[in-house]
Amino acid sequence: MKDFKIAILGCGTVGGGVARILLDLQSELAGRSSQKILLVKIIELLPKKASDRFGIPMKFFAGGKDKLSISEANRFIDEVIESDNIDLVVETIGGSNDYIEQLAIRILDAGKHLVTANKALLAERGSEIFIAAERNKRFIGFEAAVCGAIPIIKTIRESFSGDKIQSISGIMNGTSNYILSMMQNEGMEFKEALGLAQSNGFAEADPTLDINGYDAGHKLAILIKLAFGIDVSLGDIPIVGIEHIEKEDIDFGNEIDSKIKLICFAKKTNGKIYATVCPMMVKNSNFLSGVNGATNAVKVTNTYGGKHILVGAGAGSSETASSIVADIVFAAKYADIRSRITSSANLELTDAKHFDFPYIVTFETNDIPGTTGKITTCIGHQNINIDTVSHNRHKTDRATFSVATMPCTLKQIEDAIYEIKKTYPDILLSAPKIIPILY
Amino acid sequence: MKDFKIAILGCGTVGGGVARILLDLQSELAGRSSQKILLVKIIELLPKKASDRFGIPMKFFAGGKDKLSISEANRFIDEVIESDNIDLVVETIGGSNDYIEQLAIRILDAGKHLVTANKALLAERGSEIFIAAERNKRFIGFEAAVCGAIPIIKTIRESFSGDKIQSISGIMNGTSNYILSMMQNEGMEFKEALGLAQSNGFAEADPTLDINGYDAGHKLAILIKLAFGIDVSLGDIPIVGIEHIEKEDIDFGNEIDSKIKLICFAKKTNGKIYATVCPMMVKNSNFLSGVNGATNAVKVTNTYGGKHILVGAGAGSSETASSIVADIVFAAKYADIRSRITSSANLELTDAKHFDFPYIVTFETNDIPGTTGKITTCIGHQNINIDTVSHNRHKTDRATFSVATMPCTLKQIEDAIYEIKKTYPDILLSAPKIIPILY
Repeated sequence: MKDFKIAILGCGTVGGGVARILLDLQSELAGRSSQKILLVKIIELLPKKASDRFGIPMKFFAGGKDKLSISEANRFIDEVIESDNIDLVVETIGGSNDYIEQLAIRILDAGKHLVTANKALLAERGSEIFIAAERNKRFIGFEAAVCGAIPIIKTIRESFSGDKIQSISGIMNGTSNYILSMMQNEGMEFKEALGLAQSNGFAEADPTLDINGYDAGHKLAILIKLAFGIDVSLGDIPIVGIEHIEKEDIDFGNEIDSKIKLICFAKKTNGKIYATVCPMMVKNSNFLSGVNGATNAVKVTNTYGGKHILVGAGAGSSETASSIVADIVFAAKYADIRSRITSSANLELTDAKHFDFPYIVTFETNDIPGTTGKITTCIGHQNINIDTVSHNRHKTDRATFSVATMPCTLKQIEDAIYEIKKTYPDILLSAPKIIPILY
Repeated sequence: MKDFKIAILGCGTVGGGVARILLDLQSELAGRSSQKILLVKIIELLPKKASDRFGIPMKFFAGGKDKLSISEANRFIDEVIESDNIDLVVETIGGSNDYIEQLAIRILDAGKHLVTANKALLAERGSEIFIAAERNKRFIGFEAAVCGAIPIIKTIRESFSGDKIQSISGIMNGTSNYILSMMQNEGMEFKEALGLAQSNGFAEADPTLDINGYDAGHKLAILIKLAFGIDVSLGDIPIVGIEHIEKEDIDFGNEIDSKIKLICFAKKTNGKIYATVCPMMVKNSNFLSGVNGATNAVKVTNTYGGKHILVGAGAGSSETASSIVADIVFAAKYADIRSRITSSANLELTDAKHFDFPYIVTFETNDIPGTTGKITTCIGHQNINIDTVSHNRHKTDRATFSVATMPCTLKQIEDAIYEIKKTYPDILLSAPKIIPILY
């Protein structure tokens, strides 16, 4: 049995979890890959701390002392890249900058397989790295970069390879889903739920990227590349976060048999990909409405295979590490790796503004007879069919009511709002809230 | 780009679907596998009929005439096996007999990859076939054999390879789930629901294997082999079908926030695997309770990655074919195939009688004061904790009531019933119904 040798760069939450599994499951992994998968070297700025935290013997850490300077660590990284004694490098340093991008490319150019959980890097700078993997016929594993433990990457690459993907939708950020679940199920306001998420370890000290939808956007960009073969950058995808969701939006959702979820959405129609990340009113009949807490879920609709749903842990040390180790076993198992991620020149990403969703538009107005008529008339002028107009939900002098539309484009809604504002300058007391409905 | 040449044996519902996808997605499959995947030959007793049904040109069919005799077909199959011009054979003939087993082994011994949807064959005669695959370093693909379009096989083999599986549970037979869903949601009796399943094409003319749990048992046996590395035959797994489920069982499920589902269950505890297929009261908090119609769902709990759920179409021509084509692409993509399915000598299958479930036991007695006391006393003698005793659900002179127990073994329940019968020979008017509860 041949040896398959691993170096881990960065031994934090995820890297430490990977080292732990490699040591714990040594014989199982050998059975599964027909190779002896050996942890050879860990490069970490604080070896002693990581060794204590994860119970990993100090002998695995480069330098053999409690602390490394950055220049020492960089020198050890260069040694790993140049070494003939390493088959695969796990990059769990994180960050998306020139150094990390170049590091990834250097690892692949040195003939080593690369496994990473770095979603920002792949979403923002993935193409050069994917090309380097193909050029060197090396495997690039990034199962852990999208939805933690859910094997959506391998499922698309290896299990949906006999099909055509039509659409992907899902809950891909655990923090925001935890917050929305707490607002939904415990009646909390946004700030209270965010505070709870932070104190329970479901949100970072700086939760900006979770709340504003950008973390979910990174994951969707990677899935679009994989499923549809087109490169997208975050700027191409309309992204709306959950920071403006209020308890009354949740309450209104209940009234119309729906729950508000931060949804990643990409759909292929007539050679175009419509993609967006935004809060949607998910009908209770849609499975995604019942996915609560920090759990992630992805729904994929295929031409031949129909609807698929995958649910699992979206984050966590051992959960993410499990995905990384699966990538390591995969690289060890299949000697002749074809890492090619196919591109489709004939598909283009289109602004999801132009995609037909049914929408919920919530207006805040003065409570004066005639208001509904004025607003719905302007909506009608834009050729939008109205499904229902909800009752006034405020007991004060202000009226809040929602219009549920039949499928139309965001452009049509925006044009209607423009007309309302122009024709009746004082009628709207705040910017209308616009949320798509997902059946 | 190299050619990768395919022969299909049997062009019925599934084989025809495979041929269709291979022709429809030619350029996509080449992009994904870096090989030109070519349909070369189809062997089918009724070529003309299959050609018309699936729109496949007659030139692909061996013999080039409307009908083949069995001996002609066998001769063409021998030619395929001996040919240097075939890389992979798709076996969609079906059946589990000596001829089919030997055919599978001959294909692999001839150095060809094998893809099959034949669950009965693999569950009943899999070990020799798996050994042949390993001996010849050929790929054996059987994604389509378990839960149709759900990629549970590849997920276990390739995505959970960095983890340890603790348990598997799921709804793996679409016909029985369709029947139970109709009883649940439309208030139908078993026979009415079965008739509807047949007229809607969800059940075979002879639905015996779907109804009695054996089809689900075949799938569970394959998953146990894959997940835990032990060979099990159907005789080793206690299997109960849905044929005795009545409307009143469904009604009682509703009273206790549960739905009756035919559940495949396997769990590893202390070096033993407990496995069973039987109707269970699935609590509404368990995701599986909400899986309706012909849909399948599998829940896998891993040591590191936690809980995973996969949902999708359990059957259907194009759905099953999509799984087969994914296996073809996989075989084409990874030249150095390691098909080894690892065995765990230190695990043993144990009768699920000895596994602790909470149970619902339903008794039919005469409606006489004192009965509940007699029965629950006997249950207590077996050291079974009682959770609740439900009210009498009959308005006649007969009483039907259910005892919900805390976790205990089926053996304990059986012993309690034995004691009840022995002590009070006339108290039970029928055999008590025993259903595990799944939280």
